[in-house]
Amino acid sequence: MPDQPATASIIAVGSEMLGTARVDTNSLKITAALEDFGIGLVRKSVTGDRLDDLVAEIRFAIDRSDILVTSGGLGPTEDDLTRDALAKAFGLQMEVDRSIIDRIEARFAARGWKMPEVNKRQANVFRAQTTLRNERGTAPGFHLQIDGKDVWVFPGVPHELEWMLETYFVPWLQSKRTGRSRYRRVLKVAGLTESGVEEKLKPYYEAHDHEPLTILASGAQIEIHLQADGGEAEAKAAIAAREQELRAIFGRKIFGFDGDVMEAVIGRMLTERNETVATAESCTGGLLSSRITDVAGSSGYFMGGAVCYTAEAKMFLAGVDPALIQQHGEVSEPVAIELARGARRRFGTTYGVGITGIAGPGGGTEAKPVGTVHIAVADVLRAEHRKLFWPMTRPMFKWFATQAALDLLRVFMLDGTTQDS
Amino acid sequence: MPDQPATASIIAVGSEMLGTARVDTNSLKITAALEDFGIGLVRKSVTGDRLDDLVAEIRFAIDRSDILVTSGGLGPTEDDLTRDALAKAFGLQMEVDRSIIDRIEARFAARGWKMPEVNKRQANVFRAQTTLRNERGTAPGFHLQIDGKDVWVFPGVPHELEWMLETYFVPWLQSKRTGRSRYRRVLKVAGLTESGVEEKLKPYYEAHDHEPLTILASGAQIEIHLQADGGEAEAKAAIAAREQELRAIFGRKIFGFDGDVMEAVIGRMLTERNETVATAESCTGGLLSSRITDVAGSSGYFMGGAVCYTAEAKMFLAGVDPALIQQHGEVSEPVAIELARGARRRFGTTYGVGITGIAGPGGGTEAKPVGTVHIAVADVLRAEHRKLFWPMTRPMFKWFATQAALDLLRVFMLDGTTQDS
Repeated sequence: MPDQPATASIIAVGSEMLGTARVDTNSLKITAALEDFGIGLVRKSVTGDRLDDLVAEIRFAIDRSDILVTSGGLGPTEDDLTRDALAKAFGLQMEVDRSIIDRIEARFAARGWKMPEVNKRQANVFRAQTTLRNERGTAPGFHLQIDGKDVWVFPGVPHELEWMLETYFVPWLQSKRTGRSRYRRVLKVAGLTESGVEEKLKPYYEAHDHEPLTILASGAQIEIHLQADGGEAEAKAAIAAREQELRAIFGRKIFGFDGDVMEAVIGRMLTERNETVATAESCTGGLLSSRITDVAGSSGYFMGGAVCYTAEAKMFLAGVDPALIQQHGEVSEPVAIELARGARRRFGTTYGVGITGIAGPGGGTEAKPVGTVHIAVADVLRAEHRKLFWPMTRPMFKWFATQAALDLLRVFMLDGTTQDS
Repeated sequence: MPDQPATASIIAVGSEMLGTARVDTNSLKITAALEDFGIGLVRKSVTGDRLDDLVAEIRFAIDRSDILVTSGGLGPTEDDLTRDALAKAFGLQMEVDRSIIDRIEARFAARGWKMPEVNKRQANVFRAQTTLRNERGTAPGFHLQIDGKDVWVFPGVPHELEWMLETYFVPWLQSKRTGRSRYRRVLKVAGLTESGVEEKLKPYYEAHDHEPLTILASGAQIEIHLQADGGEAEAKAAIAAREQELRAIFGRKIFGFDGDVMEAVIGRMLTERNETVATAESCTGGLLSSRITDVAGSSGYFMGGAVCYTAEAKMFLAGVDPALIQQHGEVSEPVAIELARGARRRFGTTYGVGITGIAGPGGGTEAKPVGTVHIAVADVLRAEHRKLFWPMTRPMFKWFATQAALDLLRVFMLDGTTQDS
């Protein structure tokens, strides 16, 4: 491996992974091993059972990285082409390794079976290869060095591959390690769009010579991924310095880190403060309480919720004044606030959260189009409200609305003000 | 498209899909569309955010197939490189399409926001492209014809991609079709495990010379995939014959077909019968009502729900008799039935559904271990109950419990008996 951070490619071989029923998950395990040693994956691909395609894929991949890892295509049947493709791609000759045949025969014999003739294919080896014995199956893997590059060839059966990665690949990576590893930190931001985040990052980019950051939008939140390669102390210090700058930019828009999810962050806060919450929701149909109760231990702080899909339910479940609904309509700021207050009173909690809106596709009007939603949080003294507009599919609308409601609760708890820090 | 069956490649762009946290699932949707028209996928790959890698990947892929489909890398940020890479790979010039800027500005303005400067990148187009308007997001896609090959470029956000495939890609495939296609039918089974399904399939396999069926277990349901290639009439007839045999085996355990989800099946039944439902749930925390309200039009038959996370809430929200809780405990058959009856009464609906159980990790006892759940359905005359046991993670436990409750409601409605047909 050169001094430069090494790069890797992965090829998964097998037409079954080109259909609609399966995805290649072997590559995730290979990637995890690579990342632990600071090796960047530049590409991965899935190819079928045509020899020429596989030969081309191997040549292409080895040109673009220092390490090539393949999984699959090592079985005994005609469409197991990985060996043949490697021979053709690199101009290598194959020969028979009698000891492999003996081992496969012994495996079959141990079950009282005779080895099928086809399995002999699995004993075809390259002179230059290091054979990797497979204790979990019949197909051995191997390691080749070609023009200063490393090619690792593993079977595709997941539990065989896992064992071989642990047994051969990780120790090899360890032996090659240069002290460099990859460290990561993820900052999670709520209440901004992806482009809103980019906009706020402009001074950061300028200060850092436009060095790229990975920004991921997923489920009504934005993740900012920081990473640094190198020794542990410097890498962690470098990440900490960047994190501090980003905290200065985003303040309390950052709701969590790494594996945090909003509902768990809320749960931690409530538990620490020994406070409780209840919900009264309309258009989100129970998703808000469902997300809160996805967290283990939530019965300690969540007392219950009302799903008020009709005006009547808003009155009898959450105690909303019929006159208020009459005057402002079910989808309005006063009704959202009354739902939050009603939930608090009904369940005797510290906080109440209310949501009312129009998920669509029906029910919209010019004044209140589909996608309109009012969210509110109340405690015994005060209430906060937001009006938002997300014209999207029902499940997405519901997710975004509950995310905003949880975030409003979070900021409400933080210090009694929802102003930005 | 040539007379030969055409071939396709897929490239997913984005370094986030080269990590260990995500897999490219967009390719499965693209593949499904291709397969419907008998087009073979020869390879698919994921590439990161380095321009040269992406350029090489595009050149390589287009050499090996008639159609290239890409997803992702069309956003407004610096690491969205698909346009630049295509320009470099094919030597194309870009120009600004003012109408795209106008549309993106309007999208932002509809939310009361100003379009960030960076979004202008999304208006860079190729002279030869057919722009594909994106009604679900800001990034338009496009279609290019290069040297007799077709390049389709879509955004990576799954619900945007899905809409664009439906709107542009499928109709185009249809217009190119050559008569040979793949036809599919999916049968969806509830209330059986994967091995339970396999067990029941034994006579079917024997009758069909062990010809394989694709069986997929996903989210508390089992899918049986039937497919046939060829002309429309014969292929459909072949599938229909197999379907009939499977219906004879599984009876009403088959709850739906193809894209059906349980909550939509329930919704159709309630709508047709002009009946209504309400819920009272404990351990599922609102997921039951949330799933019911994921269906457009659910406000026509869903009146509301109570999330009763405490004994008190079970009493005041759903009218459960405190003596019953005292005698049997909160997690018991009588309480589940009273929750179902209470929901019915409280919301004045045809049916009520009740769920009470122990999601864990805390709260279990020897008699009622974590994973125990009671579900019940009631109408004005009768009630049905099931006790189930699923010791699994909270979100999975909740999903399985709500699926079983919805299925109990379905069978309860079918004909007033929950006996197997």
